[in-house]
Amino acid sequence: MSDGGDGNSALGRKAFKRSRSHFTDRITADGRDGWPVEPGRYRLVVSRACPWASRSLVSRRLLGLEDALSVAVADPIQDDRSWRFTLDPDGRDPVLGIRFLGEAYDRRKTDYPGGVSVPAIVDVPSGRLVTNDYQQITLDFATEWTALHRPGAPDLYPQARRDEIDTVMEEVYEDVNNGVYRAGFATGQKEYEAACSGVFRRLELLGDRLSRQRYLVGDTLTEADIRLFTTLVRFDAVYHGHFKCNRWKLAEHPVLWAYARDLFQTPGFGDTVDFDHIKRHYYQVHTGINPTGIVPLGPDLAGWLTPHHSEELGGRPFGDGTPPGPVRPAEAIPPQGRP
Amino acid sequence: MSDGGDGNSALGRKAFKRSRSHFTDRITADGRDGWPVEPGRYRLVVSRACPWASRSLVSRRLLGLEDALSVAVADPIQDDRSWRFTLDPDGRDPVLGIRFLGEAYDRRKTDYPGGVSVPAIVDVPSGRLVTNDYQQITLDFATEWTALHRPGAPDLYPQARRDEIDTVMEEVYEDVNNGVYRAGFATGQKEYEAACSGVFRRLELLGDRLSRQRYLVGDTLTEADIRLFTTLVRFDAVYHGHFKCNRWKLAEHPVLWAYARDLFQTPGFGDTVDFDHIKRHYYQVHTGINPTGIVPLGPDLAGWLTPHHSEELGGRPFGDGTPPGPVRPAEAIPPQGRP
Repeated sequence: MSDGGDGNSALGRKAFKRSRSHFTDRITADGRDGWPVEPGRYRLVVSRACPWASRSLVSRRLLGLEDALSVAVADPIQDDRSWRFTLDPDGRDPVLGIRFLGEAYDRRKTDYPGGVSVPAIVDVPSGRLVTNDYQQITLDFATEWTALHRPGAPDLYPQARRDEIDTVMEEVYEDVNNGVYRAGFATGQKEYEAACSGVFRRLELLGDRLSRQRYLVGDTLTEADIRLFTTLVRFDAVYHGHFKCNRWKLAEHPVLWAYARDLFQTPGFGDTVDFDHIKRHYYQVHTGINPTGIVPLGPDLAGWLTPHHSEELGGRPFGDGTPPGPVRPAEAIPPQGRP
Repeated sequence: MSDGGDGNSALGRKAFKRSRSHFTDRITADGRDGWPVEPGRYRLVVSRACPWASRSLVSRRLLGLEDALSVAVADPIQDDRSWRFTLDPDGRDPVLGIRFLGEAYDRRKTDYPGGVSVPAIVDVPSGRLVTNDYQQITLDFATEWTALHRPGAPDLYPQARRDEIDTVMEEVYEDVNNGVYRAGFATGQKEYEAACSGVFRRLELLGDRLSRQRYLVGDTLTEADIRLFTTLVRFDAVYHGHFKCNRWKLAEHPVLWAYARDLFQTPGFGDTVDFDHIKRHYYQVHTGINPTGIVPLGPDLAGWLTPHHSEELGGRPFGDGTPPGPVRPAEAIPPQGRP
């Protein structure tokens, strides 16, 4: 849900409010919104910097949707026209042929007044945006795109566990996923303190839970783990300093740090993470809270690859399924983005 | 050496340069500069936020100079007239009778164009500034004020070790004491990276040294430890986030963290530290790098009081001397500034 100027525009308001996704069409097995699941028809546009978009990268990998749904990676640094394809030859996405994600928004609706955000799914034949509904996209990957899942794909949103998953995800969203943003973009001390306290209060509760079980819900990976992971993996790199969520570093909390490393080292999680994109995006785009645009050298990332011993908690990461295969060479994270 | 606007004025320059102390008269046993050591004649003006001024607070405590040299504590938040006595009744220092430290500078030299900095020593009878030479003040406490030292005061600048102490202090000054400022006030990425790398390169070397010996030079506390301490005690609270020295937290480096806690728990060190003053000063005054002025809730300070086991390295903290007695009640740090 990173739009063009979340950092700076937010500073003009007293309390940070996340804007809603405006395009909520769903791509479904039955095509009831006019967008049926079809291999090769859609293109997923992400920034690897953005936690909301990164959910879809993890989900796509775990479910083996790489061949069915191609991906476009935007430059982590937006300009005033928002997300750009400046990492691609000639600055154009090779499949959509556009230079700015906003062009796909314009084709869907002219003079749309909202922000341009990722993740976004674009219909390749028409070049029109289908959805930027970051809360729904991954749930639909898990439940509507099943015909295109790889053999051995896990069930990330199991019917029998949905109530519990939804509850956990709601708490994680409010206090953690979005809590770090409310802390970081607060313009008043009180507002900051409320958000920051909420982040750590929730993290402590999650730490208690994860001291007893390997995954958030049940004994397998679910959508809830994906959503917590994309915040945790950014925690020490950007939220701790840049967003002032600095009561402790993730690396100082034994339980959460082991959990985060466990996920990071699970195929489909860490192999989607580009720390270079993450750091440059936050520190260079949010000049309202980092006027110099200087990107810190730290933290030392080597710890992400250290043993976590989470197997001792039991758990079957993929349930009756199997881990995903290797990352496609074209999608591999360059060395500067890896621990 | 904190002057009124180091944070903001520094941002107008490409590379941060610390301005020099302009008043370098010395208070000596023989009074050769016209300022003889005399009990009750001078007043030490500090901010507890400022690492350079805090050296003099530690030294004064270790040497037992509290009765001979009274202290004035400035508000950690300067305004455009620099350091203020807004913490005192009616906003006036009760001994000097002035509202701003700058008034003592003016009595010494009218239209002085430099900044008003702490530590400063003021001659009480005339109300004139004597010295703001932060590099010399503590050395003179150790070597010129000896007649007024408490019984059992340690030798903080022992003749036989001065070359080694001077060498260590010079390296610590360049790379650590001042290095964190060069990193924090850098306006360019390259300049920041050079400073930040230098900070951690030097800290690693100091960590190696301190893995084998309890104190920096010899087996007793010296001026070198005081100067390293005043930076280390601020490291996780302000330099890690605010100045982007974030390769690791002090609390993540077992050797330096044990060393810093050892000193913190030694009478004369931690009892001079006010984390509330430290955090509010850096985060609220340097609006050039923290435009919102929001002061982070973290880090958790409880760790400062945990066992450090540094005794196992041997060492005789006070040499043939003894630890200082308790803090004067009037100088005790309020609860909000303590771990």
